[in-house]
Amino acid sequence: MAELRRIAVAGTGLIGGSIGLALRRHGLVVVGYDRDPARAARAEELGAVDRLASSLAEAASGADVMVVAVPVGRVAEVVVEALDAGTPLVTDVGSVKAPIVAEVEAARPATASRFVGGHPMAGSEQEGLDGADARLFVGATWVLTPTGHTDPAAFAAVRGLAAQLGAEPVAVAPELHDALVAVVSHVPQLAASTLMNVAAASGEEHAILLRLAAGGFRDMTRIASGHPGIWPDICLANRDAIVTALDDYVGALQRIRGVVAGGDRDALLDLLERARAARRNLPVGLPPEELLVELRIPVPDRPGVIAEVTTLASRLGVNISDLEIAHSIEGRSGVLVLVVAERGLADFEAALAEHGYHTARTPLR
Amino acid sequence: MAELRRIAVAGTGLIGGSIGLALRRHGLVVVGYDRDPARAARAEELGAVDRLASSLAEAASGADVMVVAVPVGRVAEVVVEALDAGTPLVTDVGSVKAPIVAEVEAARPATASRFVGGHPMAGSEQEGLDGADARLFVGATWVLTPTGHTDPAAFAAVRGLAAQLGAEPVAVAPELHDALVAVVSHVPQLAASTLMNVAAASGEEHAILLRLAAGGFRDMTRIASGHPGIWPDICLANRDAIVTALDDYVGALQRIRGVVAGGDRDALLDLLERARAARRNLPVGLPPEELLVELRIPVPDRPGVIAEVTTLASRLGVNISDLEIAHSIEGRSGVLVLVVAERGLADFEAALAEHGYHTARTPLR
Repeated sequence: MAELRRIAVAGTGLIGGSIGLALRRHGLVVVGYDRDPARAARAEELGAVDRLASSLAEAASGADVMVVAVPVGRVAEVVVEALDAGTPLVTDVGSVKAPIVAEVEAARPATASRFVGGHPMAGSEQEGLDGADARLFVGATWVLTPTGHTDPAAFAAVRGLAAQLGAEPVAVAPELHDALVAVVSHVPQLAASTLMNVAAASGEEHAILLRLAAGGFRDMTRIASGHPGIWPDICLANRDAIVTALDDYVGALQRIRGVVAGGDRDALLDLLERARAARRNLPVGLPPEELLVELRIPVPDRPGVIAEVTTLASRLGVNISDLEIAHSIEGRSGVLVLVVAERGLADFEAALAEHGYHTARTPLR
Repeated sequence: MAELRRIAVAGTGLIGGSIGLALRRHGLVVVGYDRDPARAARAEELGAVDRLASSLAEAASGADVMVVAVPVGRVAEVVVEALDAGTPLVTDVGSVKAPIVAEVEAARPATASRFVGGHPMAGSEQEGLDGADARLFVGATWVLTPTGHTDPAAFAAVRGLAAQLGAEPVAVAPELHDALVAVVSHVPQLAASTLMNVAAASGEEHAILLRLAAGGFRDMTRIASGHPGIWPDICLANRDAIVTALDDYVGALQRIRGVVAGGDRDALLDLLERARAARRNLPVGLPPEELLVELRIPVPDRPGVIAEVTTLASRLGVNISDLEIAHSIEGRSGVLVLVVAERGLADFEAALAEHGYHTARTPLR
């Protein structure tokens, strides 16, 4: 496949806009199309496209590749349209893969070899175009879902595109992708919203309840505060995998219910210990070069603590790659968890100690 | 009841130690006892007690009130011991109430009137004595669980003690307390650990899975990373309420499973919208005087962002009462959510705008 020089982006939301911004920096020509003219105009204003097309066919015409970044329910039809327009290479960024891939292969068995399904694990349709960022994909995992029908040259070209955006491309079967995101993304969303609804129902009867909901509960339900607009599409598209993963989760909850009801301390401790070990091993998505360390700093609940710690870090040139506040399950004090490069860490720890902070470090890799 | 001058603290962990630190500042005499001599010594070293007693009976002798801050499984026996030693007023800080209150009233029907069950919603047995802080309870809700047998003067005295520590005392029936904390604290802990275990099981087979676990999943499972040591006690003590709340949660999950399986977009959207509204109405535990505003700031994933924002805040004298990073469900960019006093906010927003940050504010009260 020849070098990719001209990219069409269909759908100029957060993901499409970020791809446009990044590829323009690499010198590619980006033509954008969005069926919402206001969003298309905003993409041009933000510099996410070189120019706008007034139809999908116009965007496709002359493009070396089309990136389809429309809502998941419309991806397959747009991919088919692009294939029909003769675009030599088509990929998408939808968060569900098997139904899209199957629909495209069923509709266009002859030309589907030029389509490579994709899903960058970065950003979210929930955020708008104004959050678009050329560096959105740096260090992110970018799942690609080639099948037996995919042209290897097409796969290699899309893989190269993802790598050019700074992501780490990973090939996974479409069905496996869908099963995995059901577990780590779709079911957690439904579980958080459900927990919030159960608590709210008790809260209606007992207003005091919500005052008792402290840090841990807030962490668990935070994703329930996001805009729900994208979820009906996702749940419809990934229905089977979500139902399977929900059944697994409910089954596991019923087992822990049995353990609690039976008063089996050892079994309970074992379940919680295993979860703790797994949670602590959860990888952090980050650029691959640096040696990283997790730094845990118990902090009191007083004004300025976070500013003090993060300012010390920036003064000493320590980059904070990630920051979490681990609230205790009850209460408002907590532990500030920083992920920082090991370089310069000793000075940072010394400075923190001077300011009265204890630190505990765990190497991440 | 006479003024409280001399306090015995049984159990000098985080909660007992923090109570000691705070009450000593109010000029009360604090006598500490812990059956772990090393922890007792550390409490004295940290200034959490005026002196140590070598037995519970010695601590009780001459005390106006004993605060029982031992693990939940041992509270009732220590309360009974204190009542038997003649302590005129006894309270506890255990995170389960009905079984403790029932056990004390059954064991000592004549003197249980001098016992008032309590549970400050601050701190956690998971953190050690070294996190003790005289301000731990400021602004926190302190649940008290008097019954028909409780002496009103005893209740008033314990209520005064909680208020003196800066907390907001609230009286709730013991059974209701247990049902509510099952919903907002105990079941969330079990749900987070269970979700982590389900994901880890898939992760064993498919190593890629954990690389797909981004912000939202991390938020939901964060409390699973805490030390599980306290949970067998709590789950045993609050077994019935936890089983009931787990059943409610499982029932609600099965309903959402039905909605997904049936492809009912409207019902799904309705469930998620209700959860979103409830989550956004979740009160933040804070000192009551100030007008507070939630400020949402979309932030890119680059070094120094948090330091920049929090430093601007502290430079302008804006107190950050709470800070969250709301990760998108997938990916590493996010929204910084600050809770700040309305006073001085306009200057802060102007400074943020100068540095290229957009802000959206929502008044909290």
